[in-house]
Formats: sequence, C-alpha cells, structure tokens
Amino acid sequence: MLKVGIIGAGRIGRVHGESISKYVKEAEIKAIADPFLNEEQKKWAKEKGIPCAYTDYKKILEDPEIDAVLICSSTDTHSKISIEAIQAHKHVFCEKPIDHDVSRIKEVIEELKKNPSVKYQVGFNRRYDHNFKAVRQAVVDGKVGEPHILKITSRDPEPPSIDYVKVSGGMFLDMTIHDFDMVRYLMDSEVVEVYAAGNVLVDKAIGEAGDIDTAIITLKLENGAMAVIDNSRKSAYGYDQRAEVFGSKGQVTIANDSNSSAVVSTENGVTAEKPMFFFLERYMQAYAEEITEFIDAIVNDKNTPVNADDGLKPVLIGLAAQKSLKENRPVKISEIKF
Amino acid sequence: MLKVGIIGAGRIGRVHGESISKYVKEAEIKAIADPFLNEEQKKWAKEKGIPCAYTDYKKILEDPEIDAVLICSSTDTHSKISIEAIQAHKHVFCEKPIDHDVSRIKEVIEELKKNPSVKYQVGFNRRYDHNFKAVRQAVVDGKVGEPHILKITSRDPEPPSIDYVKVSGGMFLDMTIHDFDMVRYLMDSEVVEVYAAGNVLVDKAIGEAGDIDTAIITLKLENGAMAVIDNSRKSAYGYDQRAEVFGSKGQVTIANDSNSSAVVSTENGVTAEKPMFFFLERYMQAYAEEITEFIDAIVNDKNTPVNADDGLKPVLIGLAAQKSLKENRPVKISEIKF
Amino acid sequence: MLKVGIIGAGRIGRVHGESISKYVKEAEIKAIADPFLNEEQKKWAKEKGIPCAYTDYKKILEDPEIDAVLICSSTDTHSKISIEAIQAHKHVFCEKPIDHDVSRIKEVIEELKKNPSVKYQVGFNRRYDHNFKAVRQAVVDGKVGEPHILKITSRDPEPPSIDYVKVSGGMFLDMTIHDFDMVRYLMDSEVVEVYAAGNVLVDKAIGEAGDIDTAIITLKLENGAMAVIDNSRKSAYGYDQRAEVFGSKGQVTIANDSNSSAVVSTENGVTAEKPMFFFLERYMQAYAEEITEFIDAIVNDKNTPVNADDGLKPVLIGLAAQKSLKENRPVKISEIKF
Amino acid sequence: MLKVGIIGAGRIGRVHGESISKYVKEAEIKAIADPFLNEEQKKWAKEKGIPCAYTDYKKILEDPEIDAVLICSSTDTHSKISIEAIQAHKHVFCEKPIDHDVSRIKEVIEELKKNPSVKYQVGFNRRYDHNFKAVRQAVVDGKVGEPHILKITSRDPEPPSIDYVKVSGGMFLDMTIHDFDMVRYLMDSEVVEVYAAGNVLVDKAIGEAGDIDTAIITLKLENGAMAVIDNSRKSAYGYDQRAEVFGSKGQVTIANDSNSSAVVSTENGVTAEKPMFFFLERYMQAYAEEITEFIDAIVNDKNTPVNADDGLKPVLIGLAAQKSLKENRPVKISEIKF
Repeated sequence: MLKVGIIGAGRIGRVHGESISKYVKEAEIKAIADPFLNEEQKKWAKEKGIPCAYTDYKKILEDPEIDAVLICSSTDTHSKISIEAIQAHKHVFCEKPIDHDVSRIKEVIEELKKNPSVKYQVGFNRRYDHNFKAVRQAVVDGKVGEPHILKITSRDPEPPSIDYVKVSGGMFLDMTIHDFDMVRYLMDSEVVEVYAAGNVLVDKAIGEAGDIDTAIITLKLENGAMAVIDNSRKSAYGYDQRAEVFGSKGQVTIANDSNSSAVVSTENGVTAEKPMFFFLERYMQAYAEEITEFIDAIVNDKNTPVNADDGLKPVLIGLAAQKSLKENRPVKISEIKF
Repeated sequence: MLKVGIIGAGRIGRVHGESISKYVKEAEIKAIADPFLNEEQKKWAKEKGIPCAYTDYKKILEDPEIDAVLICSSTDTHSKISIEAIQAHKHVFCEKPIDHDVSRIKEVIEELKKNPSVKYQVGFNRRYDHNFKAVRQAVVDGKVGEPHILKITSRDPEPPSIDYVKVSGGMFLDMTIHDFDMVRYLMDSEVVEVYAAGNVLVDKAIGEAGDIDTAIITLKLENGAMAVIDNSRKSAYGYDQRAEVFGSKGQVTIANDSNSSAVVSTENGVTAEKPMFFFLERYMQAYAEEITEFIDAIVNDKNTPVNADDGLKPVLIGLAAQKSLKENRPVKISEIKF
Repeated sequence: MLKVGIIGAGRIGRVHGESISKYVKEAEIKAIADPFLNEEQKKWAKEKGIPCAYTDYKKILEDPEIDAVLICSSTDTHSKISIEAIQAHKHVFCEKPIDHDVSRIKEVIEELKKNPSVKYQVGFNRRYDHNFKAVRQAVVDGKVGEPHILKITSRDPEPPSIDYVKVSGGMFLDMTIHDFDMVRYLMDSEVVEVYAAGNVLVDKAIGEAGDIDTAIITLKLENGAMAVIDNSRKSAYGYDQRAEVFGSKGQVTIANDSNSSAVVSTENGVTAEKPMFFFLERYMQAYAEEITEFIDAIVNDKNTPVNADDGLKPVLIGLAAQKSLKENRPVKISEIKF
Repeated sequence: MLKVGIIGAGRIGRVHGESISKYVKEAEIKAIADPFLNEEQKKWAKEKGIPCAYTDYKKILEDPEIDAVLICSSTDTHSKISIEAIQAHKHVFCEKPIDHDVSRIKEVIEELKKNPSVKYQVGFNRRYDHNFKAVRQAVVDGKVGEPHILKITSRDPEPPSIDYVKVSGGMFLDMTIHDFDMVRYLMDSEVVEVYAAGNVLVDKAIGEAGDIDTAIITLKLENGAMAVIDNSRKSAYGYDQRAEVFGSKGQVTIANDSNSSAVVSTENGVTAEKPMFFFLERYMQAYAEEITEFIDAIVNDKNTPVNADDGLKPVLIGLAAQKSLKENRPVKISEIKF
C-alpha cells in the first residue's frame, strides 16, 4: 500500500484526497500539511482517516514511510517544494503551473535528471476529461484526417478576486495555460509561434491590476496546423469548455456538460440547462482519473502521462503570449529564453 | 400549358394558388370560385393574373379550357364536388378528408373507376415534408431494419373555434387523420386494429361540443409492427410534429423545424427557438411540392402519389378510433362498414 | 457507524457494496452472503474490507451487530427474505420487484405494520437518475403546467437469456416495472387503467418461452392525464431511456446519456456517440444515490423515499398489463385482486 | 412595374432572375446580357418570359425602359459596369466585391455622389440568412449584453479551380470577404486592426498559384471587442457556416442548416445529416430576400441595406489581411491607402 502526503489542504488538495480515498485501491493518505491548517481541514482529515495533519510540509518530506506527495500549495511554492521532494526521493504530483519562471522549472527538471527513479506528474486535469479525451481519440484514430485547425473556447463563470489576479502570473499563465496544454495534447504537435490579442472587457479593476480578462490567441504549430483559443474571465451562462479539431477528412467537436439533459419547451422557447458551473463540477471525474494514473505510474513503474516537460511547455507558450500581447506582434516560442 | 381552377378561395386555396404561380411552370390558374368571394380574394386573384373569379364553382366545371381543379372548399362539399368534377372530366386535387362518410368516399371511388383517365389526388401534404420524407427514406433504405415501433407526436398550437369543432367530424377525422396517413406512409403497411384513449384536458367547451382534445392512439399493423400517436389540440410552445421509427437495426427520428438555429445562453439557461407556429409555416414547402407532383402526374400521365384509396383508409382508421374511444376497446378496421 | 449485510453477491449486490464503501460515510459492510459464493466474490469482499462472507444469508439476519440488509438475491427469494429480515428487526433495502405475487407483497406489508420501526426501501433506482429527477422537478415546479401526456421510451440493448425470460415473470414485471414506477413518480398520480399491445418481433424464442419482446402500453391516470410506454428488448444503438411530460404550459424532455459529447462530422454525416450501453453504465450514479438515501433514512429516521407500497403498485400495474395483453382490452387496476 | 436587366447570365445571375420572377411582385426582367450567351441561357430566358437576351450589356444600359441592373458578371468588370450604369441612371445591384482595387471602388463611390438618386446595393447575401439575422437580432436586442468576442467559422466544401484561384484576388478577397462583412454586420462596429495566420494545407497547387487555403484571422474592433474567423477551402462534411457572439450577459450561436432533421441511431452511432452542400443550397432564400429588398429600396425610395461603403470596407479589411499575412504582423486598416 502506497503512502501519500498532501501538501496544501485547500480545495484542490482535498479534491485529490477524496479521489484517493474513493477510487485508488493501491494508495492511502498518511499525512496532510498546510501552514494555515484550520479546524475544518482537521475535521476533514479525521473523517478520511488520515493519521497526520501538520502545519509544516517538511514533516511529510521527512517521513520515510511516505512514498509520494501531492503539491497543492500556492503556486509560488510549487517549484521549491518540488525540488525538495525530489531530493527526498518522493514521487511528486504537482499542481499546475510548476512555476511562472522558466529557470525555476529548469531546476526542477535538472533535479529530476539526478533522481531518475522519481516519478513527476503535472496537474493538467483536462487531459482526463471524457470529452477532451474523445477529441484526442478521434484525432489519433484519423477520423478527421490531417488536423488543420483547432479551436478552443475556454471561459470561466467568474473572475478570480483582484488579490488573486495580482499574484496569478496573469491570465495566460493562470487560466490559458490549460488551453495551451490542450493544444499540445489534442494536436500532438509543438507550438512554434503565438499571437495574442487581449483586452479588459469584463472588469476594469482587472486592467488596473495589470492583467486582461478577454483574449483571442492564435498559435502556429510545427506540423503546419493552426490553433485558436478564446478566453473570457466571465461567462454569464457558466463554465464554457469546448473544442473543435478540423482536418482533411472532417471535424470533431465537443460540447459542454450539464447536470441533466432536460429541455423545457414553453411559449418562451426551448430551454436546456446551463453548462456545469465551474471546474470542480465539470472536471471532478478528471481529477480522480489523473490521481489514479499518477499512483498507477508509481505502482507499475510507468512513465507519468504528464511530465515535467509537459509542465514547462505551456509556460513557455504563456510567456510568449504575454510578450506578444505587450509588443502586439507574433512571437516565436524560441524567443523565450530557457 | 395546363389550366387550373381553384374551388374555395380560403387560406389553403390561396396557398395552392401561390405555389402554382411560383413553382409550377406547366400550369396556370384560369379561375377561382368561392360562394363568399370577397374583395380581398378578388384583389389577390387580380395580382396573380387569374382571369376569372366566380361565386359559383360550377362555372369552373363547365369551362372546357380548364383541365384540373383544386377542391379547397368546406369539407362537407369535398365528395360532392369531387364527383361532379370527375364527371366533367377534370383532374382533381381534393383537400383532406374526402368525406367523413365512407359511403360517400366509395361513390367517389366508383366514379373514378368509370373515368379512368381522370387523375385524383388527396391533400395529405405531410408526405412532402422534408423531415417525414427523410424518415420514410431511412425506412425504405433499410437503415432501421425491420420496423417495430412508430411513434408520432402531433400537437396543434391552438384549438380551432368551438364552431369549427362542431362541424369538424371530431379530432380523429380532422387532425389525427394526417397522422393516420403518416402511419401508412412511414410504415408501408396497413392498420388492422386501433385503440384510442382520449380526454378533454385543454378546454371543457370542446368536451361540451362532443369532442376530445387530447389522445393517445395505439395501432396494430398488418406486418406485426405497432404505432402510437399522441395528440393535443394545444401545445404552448407551437406546432409539435415529430416522428420516430424504431426497428431491428436502429431508429430514425425527426425534430421540429424552427425559424433559425440561434441558441441564446444566459444565466437563465440555453434557449433555442420554438418550433414554427403552425402548419402554414411548417408545411409551406410541402404544399408547393404536393401541387407540383399533382400537375406532374397529369402532364406526364403518372399515377398520383396520394390516390382516392389513400384518402379512404385514414377515414376508416379515424372511424375505428372513434368507435374505440366510445366503447373503450380495441377496434378492428374491418369492423367499419364500407 | 451503521453495519450493513448484503444478501446476494451478484452484480447488483456488488454495485451497492461499491457505493457504500465509496460514498456512504455513515455505513460499513460487515457481511456478504450468497449460496453460490465464488472465489471472485470472496476476493472482492476482501478488497473492500468486508469481514464476513457467508453462503447462508441467515447468518446475516442472526448477527445482532448488523443494522440493515440489502436483498440482492434472485427475485423469487425477495419477499421471503424481506419478511425474515423485518422479523429480525433489520432495515431492508430490497431489489425490485418484491414479488410477482401480490399476496406475498401483502405479507411483507403486513409484517412491516407489525414492525413500524423497520425502514423498507425498494430498489427503483431510476428515481435517482439525474435526468428523470430533472423531469419530475420540472413537473413539480409547474414548468409544464397541468400534465396531460407522459411518454416513456424504455428499450434494452440486449434481451436476457431465454432461461432468464422463463423465470422473469414476463417483460412487464421484469422490465416495464421500472417504467410503471416512473409513471407514478413523474406524474404524481395513480394509474387506474392499462391497455397493453405487445408482440414478438425481436426473437421468436422469447415468444416460445411465453413472453413478448416489444410493447406499447397506454395508461390512464387518476388525474385524467394519460401515459404511454414503449418497450423493446433489443435496441441496436444501446440502452434507450427517455421521457417527455407534456402539459398545459409546455413540455419537458430528457435525452439519453452518452460517454462524451464528441460529434464527428465527415462526408458520411454528423455522428454523435451512442447512448451508454446498459443500466450499469447509465444508472451507476443513481445506484449510489439510492443507497445513500436508504442509509440516510435509517440514520436520520426519515421515511424511505420508495416504500413497500411503491413496490406493490407497479406490480399491480404489471399484472393488469399482462391481463390486458392476454384479453386484448383495457384493464382497470382495480380488477387485480389484492 | 419596375424593369430590370441582368448583366451576366451565369449561375448567380440566373439565381437572382428566378428570385425576381417568383417573389418580387413589383419587378419584371426585361433583358439579360452575357458576352458568352449560350443556348441553355437563352432557353432559360425564354422560359422566364424575358423578352431580350443580348451579348452586349451596353444594350441594357441604353434601354430607357430599364430602371435597374443586376451586375453578375466577372469580378474584374464590376466597378467598370457599375460606373457606366450609374452614369446611365440605372439603379445598381452589384455582386461582391465591387473591385479588388480600392481606388476603383472609390471611383464608384464618387460617381454615386454625383448621382444621388441612384440606388446602389452590394450582394452580401449572408445578411439575409435566417440564422445570421437571428444572431444580429439577439445582439441588437441586448440578449448577450455588450459584445466581447465574435467567432465565425466559414469553410467551403470544395476549393475553386486553380484557374479561378489565380484571378480570385486571393482567398481573403474572394471568400473571407463575406466573413469580414459579417463581422461588421453582427458587431455593428468597424474593424481597426487585423492579424492573419494562413497556410496551404488543402492543396499544394493553391499555394503554387500564390494563395492560401486555410486561415485564422483575428480582428480588433473600434468598440474594444474582438473577432476571429477561421477559413478552409475544403470541408469534407460540406459548407460550414457558423457564428457565435459572446458578451457580458451571454452568448448567441448558430448552427448549420441541413436538408432534414432526421437522425439515424444504429450500432455505429447517432448520425444526423451533413450541412447543406454549398452557398446555393444554404443561401437560396437569402438571395431572394436581398433582391426583394433591393427592389423595395427603389420602389419605396429607401436607403439600400448594403451600400457602396459596405462594399468598400470588407475590401479594405481583406487588403489589410493580405498585408498581415505577408508581413506576419497585425496591420491597421488605416495603413491601407484609400
């Protein structure tokens, strides 16, 4: 039985904890750590039968019984704890992004090279979503022929707080980074150039905090295909997560998930349910699957499906997008120093 | 150039007139007749370039230049004018139903036997609707295998006036008759038995007029398959016209048509347009096609696609349904005397 | 912590076991019993941490630590074990149907009257399905006004084995019974009369075993509304589970669930996924919810949401449908002796 | 009765001719002219009752009885004939684009200033499509709030011949020009900057002819909103014409039209019909409406709904897109000399 420690007892840390206790036979959670550990979190740990609850994550790294850690702490600590955990020979599941600074990600990758037995996975959960998987499968199966155009719509139901916006690294590294990962995952080709158009249309305060809230990003891929992402921080009808791949033989599209297929027809129209509200509703099953695959990679000594390099590439694209927006010109990924 | 007379200048008569002038190259309208011919109708005839407008339809039957007549007068005159027109050697397009009294329909059929060169077509327009045609085509092409179950939903947006209800012949002969025709058309098999459950749920006044407004009718077919029709005189969201054929290899379904595919997503839901309001909107193209095929049958000496026997059968089914409702038991079509 | 015993370690017994271990905090499984307990079942019990695995279910009933039992054994044992469990003061979750013989169900109800503290729930899982719940909610919320017509389509992807057909009690009691329950659940009104049309269109062997495989059943309800169910034992495209309620203000419909929303457009058409294959896929979440509600009813001393009377009524409707089919006439529920 | 001359008896000229004869009461076609007038075209003119058929369009311009001309000749003659027709005091309906050279369009506009009584309309037919109209209406009605993002997908089923590609003015001026018009129509705001990414993915011969066949074009609008268009010259599943407007209060989307709503479910999936094949099928009704509105503008002395300026703007955007593609940078519309 694999023993797991969760670093960061916030929402996403507990989501992963629930997944392990419900779905993962081969693992159990031994400890949870959070510098601001509160009563609710302690109670949750107790209910889940987690023996140890710390404020200092180092106790997890020092515990020789613990095989793997989930890094669910604030973004600015991801790379630091990653390096420490690798050095402590713990397998690591790290929430995205590894860091906003590519040199720090580079250090993580260097550390992994020194510790080749350590498994490292980045939390790009959308790769496990039933819909996105179906798009990729259709592409892999050749159902659309050679891919020509990928379209991703990705819109949040509510912008984050302005305090969060300030430390988020900007919309491209915080939100679009998932879409950049999807471009690579769905098209199986690397991005070579990015052009980002963006604006502040949702909330002026976001602009005052130095960020944008609405964007259209065009990406040129190594294989000649193109991708386009459109983002908004606020979609009135809920979390909008769609994709289309168009190719020489046709197209595959996915729609949003909703809580039921009920459609009510009245004199006012024919009304279906809104999409599920946000990522926790839409991707709950995907979160469970990514953790299951992480544990499986450890137990059966497989490569992790989303490795440190997969964690690095979307950050590079994000930085190129930032530069593109600032300079209003297409920017090559190779312009971003690494 | 075929010359046509229209008997009955009401709504449906003018719909057919428009169709001929727009779409049918080989025919022109020479005359229109209506006992209550009003100024609006006269003006319409003038605009369409129709030379003659009468109050007495016999002038049309007596005109040796006129080759064909469209009988669009009130239902109780259909069989009488049909017989007179056949005797006058005019080809006849007769609105449904030919008569509520099968013995009268029998007389029309007898008259047709005496005048084998006369073409006779009944106005079951749904056979020309793009959706219903697609269902039949899928069945004919074997896409659903052997048909097992046909489901028809047929609901009007508004009940007719109580005055009309009283002379309509009852819902089964007035409204469901189209659905009975669709059962025969889509399944290519004759109905042998009917069970009708009905109630007055929309408007008590309809019940007081001796009719029902809501029904579920089960039909057993010669080929062993079954069909079910559900009717309502009032659908809040508009004209609901759907069908499904389920068979050994699968199913074909059709949805309603609406004015556009626009879908508006807001915090209140994901809302599409209602179905088109009523038969004139939904079946306008079908009306044009049925008249085109009628003229084509004359010009090219083909069988009419919906003949007098196709006019008779749904009336027999309707009478069996009435008997079933009254006696609350399944009724064989063979019980209806003919 | 509530202690539960599972009687019957077949597929559905283990589905409920999984649900309890994953989702139900307040309960744990102490024992499982099956007369034909095999190695796979024993292994499963061990993995789930179930301490006891018996061949004799009476050991469960005799265990004073066990608070509740799930009766997942073969249908012919449901009522007998129900009575014994009630007498042993165990709360009972019983798979449907309680019995094919209403007098036996009556005995269960009598036994419950003698033991008013015992909770009894029948396994009509569809009441917990997200789609069917949404239909009921729309009806309860008045979104469709007064309900007039309910349509249920319920088709299995594959017929059961002929051996099973012989002991199933017939399609109406084995398969349609769920739909009869849905009529009561969705319309909140009792069925007063049934007319069943049925045939053998899927497999002659089913007919030779004395059953039918295709049916259309019309039901008249106490509130004046009508319902119609269509069934097939074999749907080529998978498990077809849809419903529509039409009323004075509109309609609510539900569609099938599928594994993803992926739609592939090629020169051959625009193709979506088939519905989920069968009940285990489609209703997995519903199974979890019904067990959760059963445990909740015990822990918080609530009425069970589907009680013994709810178990009886669909059997009465099923028996009336059998009689209707045999005698080819509408049959009142009151004709079924109870 | 307005008298109309059609210059150019190709496909689109005859489409407009059919529309006038079927739908436009106030106009009749007096003459048709085509330098390569063939027997089929002469026969068509005869059937439509068109008295005159010329090889020289100047005979139309010289006919004092003719009030209006439809310029449906090859693109390189549009501006020249426009100017001559305006000088001859004929009202002009001109197929798009007026010219590939903005200085020539400028001359047309100058000529119109000199002849203020002449009505001039450009053939942007999509403005009359039921779906695109519904999108605009939703935007105008405020259903989506302030528009933030417009997405247009516009893909042809088949690329044109290489001979045509060579004289087409390039994909942006030949095909995307409709989409540029839709951006202005749907968003009611002018384009200020364009960034075009393009490639040759469909057919190398198109690249050898100096054009592209696949593109993603991002547009910044005066009101701060953004638009993105994706184009392909070859969509395996047919003509793909969709749009979405996303705004502060929600989103409006439109789907493709198909010949019927039939959906066939089999063991292979749930398959709907492909979109209608190409523009003649999809936009037939729109063609009729644009001509009807042109005639109406003349008869009732209204402004034409798509004037010469509306003909100019998309050409400017197209030229900016060409420059953007060539220089791989965003290009302001103001950079295009006019």
